[in-house]
Amino acid sequence: MKRKIRVTVWNEFRHELDKKHPSGKVYPKGMHAVIAKALAAEADFEVRTATLDEPEHGLSKETLAATDVLTWWGHMAHGEVKDEIVERVWHRVVLGGMGLIVMHSGHFSKIFRKLMGTTCDLRWREAGEKERIWVVEPNHPIAAGLPPHFEIPHTEMYGERFDIPAPDELVFVSWFQGGDVFRSGCCFNRGIGRIFYFRPGHETFPIYKQPEVQRVIANACRWAAASGCPPTQFGHVPTPLEKC
Amino acid sequence: MKRKIRVTVWNEFRHELDKKHPSGKVYPKGMHAVIAKALAAEADFEVRTATLDEPEHGLSKETLAATDVLTWWGHMAHGEVKDEIVERVWHRVVLGGMGLIVMHSGHFSKIFRKLMGTTCDLRWREAGEKERIWVVEPNHPIAAGLPPHFEIPHTEMYGERFDIPAPDELVFVSWFQGGDVFRSGCCFNRGIGRIFYFRPGHETFPIYKQPEVQRVIANACRWAAASGCPPTQFGHVPTPLEKC
Amino acid sequence: MKRKIRVTVWNEFRHELDKKHPSGKVYPKGMHAVIAKALAAEADFEVRTATLDEPEHGLSKETLAATDVLTWWGHMAHGEVKDEIVERVWHRVVLGGMGLIVMHSGHFSKIFRKLMGTTCDLRWREAGEKERIWVVEPNHPIAAGLPPHFEIPHTEMYGERFDIPAPDELVFVSWFQGGDVFRSGCCFNRGIGRIFYFRPGHETFPIYKQPEVQRVIANACRWAAASGCPPTQFGHVPTPLEKC
Amino acid sequence: MKRKIRVTVWNEFRHELDKKHPSGKVYPKGMHAVIAKALAAEADFEVRTATLDEPEHGLSKETLAATDVLTWWGHMAHGEVKDEIVERVWHRVVLGGMGLIVMHSGHFSKIFRKLMGTTCDLRWREAGEKERIWVVEPNHPIAAGLPPHFEIPHTEMYGERFDIPAPDELVFVSWFQGGDVFRSGCCFNRGIGRIFYFRPGHETFPIYKQPEVQRVIANACRWAAASGCPPTQFGHVPTPLEKC
Repeated sequence: MKRKIRVTVWNEFRHELDKKHPSGKVYPKGMHAVIAKALAAEADFEVRTATLDEPEHGLSKETLAATDVLTWWGHMAHGEVKDEIVERVWHRVVLGGMGLIVMHSGHFSKIFRKLMGTTCDLRWREAGEKERIWVVEPNHPIAAGLPPHFEIPHTEMYGERFDIPAPDELVFVSWFQGGDVFRSGCCFNRGIGRIFYFRPGHETFPIYKQPEVQRVIANACRWAAASGCPPTQFGHVPTPLEKC
Repeated sequence: MKRKIRVTVWNEFRHELDKKHPSGKVYPKGMHAVIAKALAAEADFEVRTATLDEPEHGLSKETLAATDVLTWWGHMAHGEVKDEIVERVWHRVVLGGMGLIVMHSGHFSKIFRKLMGTTCDLRWREAGEKERIWVVEPNHPIAAGLPPHFEIPHTEMYGERFDIPAPDELVFVSWFQGGDVFRSGCCFNRGIGRIFYFRPGHETFPIYKQPEVQRVIANACRWAAASGCPPTQFGHVPTPLEKC
Repeated sequence: MKRKIRVTVWNEFRHELDKKHPSGKVYPKGMHAVIAKALAAEADFEVRTATLDEPEHGLSKETLAATDVLTWWGHMAHGEVKDEIVERVWHRVVLGGMGLIVMHSGHFSKIFRKLMGTTCDLRWREAGEKERIWVVEPNHPIAAGLPPHFEIPHTEMYGERFDIPAPDELVFVSWFQGGDVFRSGCCFNRGIGRIFYFRPGHETFPIYKQPEVQRVIANACRWAAASGCPPTQFGHVPTPLEKC
Repeated sequence: MKRKIRVTVWNEFRHELDKKHPSGKVYPKGMHAVIAKALAAEADFEVRTATLDEPEHGLSKETLAATDVLTWWGHMAHGEVKDEIVERVWHRVVLGGMGLIVMHSGHFSKIFRKLMGTTCDLRWREAGEKERIWVVEPNHPIAAGLPPHFEIPHTEMYGERFDIPAPDELVFVSWFQGGDVFRSGCCFNRGIGRIFYFRPGHETFPIYKQPEVQRVIANACRWAAASGCPPTQFGHVPTPLEKC
């Protein structure tokens, strides 16, 4: 039998604990709880969660070594994520092949910016407007089982220009009621790791409870799961293969 | 008349000053002097140089603001380049549109690794072997005026796997006598800046004196010259363009 | 002085001649006349026009040999374009480096489909709705001088999925009032030729009279102008460069 | 249990039947027999073969409808492949999602050129020289289980410039003893179909008997296997999703 894909669902988990913030009503146990539950309902995943305020942000060396795909949600506390842990995650992605799914406001996380090399900035608006996500590459595994488009009734808007390197594969483009568009599903290969940026998701709307959104996250975890390729050999190779 | 392209040729300039090192014989005034002279011989460039041991590594805010394209050569002292200056160069590329030409061992410079988001590692060998550079995209402006292939008689070898993101455009691939290949001419867009990585060049061989190599560097500077596009507006846009 | 870019503006020119069709009112001399006039107003272009019902569709060998960039508009008579002429244009693009700008309903032209290798199909609707074109790569030469977005007040909608190969560079994405999105500005390299697909333009709306649209077409012609690289040498090379 | 991947191994099968040609000694039952046997030895494939001189070249509508991946080898008789069958295969790839693995001299087949839109020309030499294939994207599924490089002791040389669109993913680059390089493993998405071009393979050398080559072909078939995504809906959509 094929080994299960080990997913660690990471969440900053601050908004939801703030009693004055609406997110606690939508996600009383945190967004990670909803995402983890949805993934755990599928037979091929083994799921754990981790949050910012745990020791080492819940991302010890052991946990990362036992993680095939890490999903990332952060917003108000990007700056509190320790550089040492960012370095550890980066190393595990680029040299170890761990997949990374970055969601919504995670665009501004240290780890995503470090992997992209750009500002990852964008335009945004909180008007609770409608978003319609269009599949532009229907044969991509991350689009498996999706209709040609699906809607998020109320969301925060993210609009272009999105300052990322041109994605290796562009899977989704969003339409917003307020007149904007966005590259909402972007695949990147970095080192031997696979990274997927997925725009939807906001702490005050029940977006991670939508079946289509859950489907995309599950598909993305499968796509990004460690390839199992051995570590690449770099460095000094003094003996040439051919006479020279 | 069209304004000249302002190029700053940056060099670590350490090997050449070491009397025990052969590079001083090949480049008595430094590699930057040879590169700058070749560029200055073309009518459309205005050239200055900068080196590691100058104040601020010769890369003051004023100098960078007056630079359309920065060329970068470093090797033994990557670690001595101050993070603050790396940040400044990165900002000028990504948000200001300055071009950046990274050469040879510059693959391991802080600035290139920061822009790429990967290790930028590779395999290498110093056997003084022959390299043959093949043009794989003949219509690319960086290949203008080149023959289908050209040779570097003696060089250090860099071999695949080269740990970079897939380049936006792959212009050159190298063949090495010792049996290796390498993606030797790689274009990247990051933010509004253009970056070109060019493999050839080693401190102990007169590679930067070769006409084909000089031609590539000049072509690359033209290609990477600041686009002149205005800074992108990011951030909060509370008023939607359409009613929502 | 630099030689002018020689542009041939090609138009099917059937709708405009049909007295029952509204396009004749909008473009009494044909869309090509408006496009050609806009280009001719810029100092670096030398412009001619050609239409379907001229001998050889106005695309004799001599005309094509003297054309750096060909712009293409067709719709109702794609099938009447002779295969021999399609072959001739294809040859001139791929092997000769002529640029090709394909507009709007030209997505279904024989030449575009032959160059893409896919169906080039899409979804469409004629509701006279609003389109907003977003620049996703502001540093691309085709976006030079444009605002972050511009609007077309009334147009035919083209929506995703657009069945093209992933473009080498994606410059524009369109938002439509009716809820759709579209990859509206797509760059492709084929052989030594450059191809740009630009979505806007419909025969019954005065879209080609808009300054932003004219600006894009002029930018695209400059980008696609023949690189001047010599023809590539293919075929049998019996003598190896190295002993084997 | 997961359904097996249905592979049809297509071969021109002319050289091997020519008693004066050395290929008959290397592949007495044809190259397709060797390729099919290697695939059939893996548990997840269901394999059949088809050749040029069978009715409809062995590619009836029924056969194609029951094929997830088609592998293609042709050389001396590209022109004898009927346009109607080429069209049928093209349709099945682009609109039906059938995978297509094009090998060696298949670069000049009608189907590959139709899908690429370019000449697919290259430089070649028959000197029986050594080829070394380097993995440039080790985490790609087509590289699974391969060493960092492997050799083909004697082969026909194919050298750059290879006139193809820039591949969506470049997996392998070849080094040749005679001094050339080649993009040897190229992935393309066209419509909802996946195409892989794999350079190795020549009728007079036992290349398809090499374990690494067989491994690549098996990996490529898995990668290219029909995604199972439903046919895309194109065409007229008169009713907008939003009021306009």
